[in-house]
Amino acid sequence: MKSLFGSPGKVSGLVLRISQCLFASASLAVMSSASGFSTATSFCFLIAAMGLEVLWSFGLACLDIHALRLKKDLHNHIVLSLLAIGDWVTAILSLAAACSSAGVMVVFMKDTNICSRSHATLSCDTFQISVALAFVAWFLLAVSSYVMFWLLATI
Amino acid sequence: MKSLFGSPGKVSGLVLRISQCLFASASLAVMSSASGFSTATSFCFLIAAMGLEVLWSFGLACLDIHALRLKKDLHNHIVLSLLAIGDWVTAILSLAAACSSAGVMVVFMKDTNICSRSHATLSCDTFQISVALAFVAWFLLAVSSYVMFWLLATI
Repeated sequence: MKSLFGSPGKVSGLVLRISQCLFASASLAVMSSASGFSTATSFCFLIAAMGLEVLWSFGLACLDIHALRLKKDLHNHIVLSLLAIGDWVTAILSLAAACSSAGVMVVFMKDTNICSRSHATLSCDTFQISVALAFVAWFLLAVSSYVMFWLLATI
Repeated sequence: MKSLFGSPGKVSGLVLRISQCLFASASLAVMSSASGFSTATSFCFLIAAMGLEVLWSFGLACLDIHALRLKKDLHNHIVLSLLAIGDWVTAILSLAAACSSAGVMVVFMKDTNICSRSHATLSCDTFQISVALAFVAWFLLAVSSYVMFWLLATI
């Protein structure tokens, strides 16, 4: 049995899942609280993708707690395949959402100056914080995805 | 020696690299020929990312031709590590560029209606074709990246 950092059913895996869940929730909460987020479809997509990441990471954190309490081994082919596919799909969606929102942010702040013209209706600083948190959440999920893929390839 | 589809130094690998190169070049050429692409930073980022993908894939296509002609084996740890890291960095940059451009496209076409108001200065249909080609180029590069990572893990 391999013992990589972030493996499922390990304390490091649980810490990684909780961190993903916290950063994705923070990004979702900050974006939802920003005024005028519904003006851009990408920001709504970011909320949906972060919601998916929260649900996925929370579910896997619960699985890790269950495995740690009962000292179960999660390193079998079926479990690792499901976790790897789920991790990759969620990671690609999170990166897509974070990048599209970042692209829209650049249009709002630099290319069209909408932010400086209508700073009363659009809270651009809050959007930026949410996008930064989404990138951190994606990075943590990408680490999990690589670990899952490595474990699946070497099992 | 593993013989996966798309392995370096194989005919399937060469076909995959040439396809990546062609789609990335097409995306770059279409975006560069569109009027008003410099209005959005994301479109310039797409051109840079597709340029990087063209250079990377073209270089690896040449390496594949060299290995096929001299019947060299490229399956050693150092070559595979370098190819895997390069593929992953290029794939993440391509996806980021394609997604940010897609986000900007949605802002231009749906959220702000800039496209319908100024269709003389912005060729929005051309932008869409370029973004679609960039997604195809990214998908082909993602296939290579997974193959490299799998070969590296199982070598």
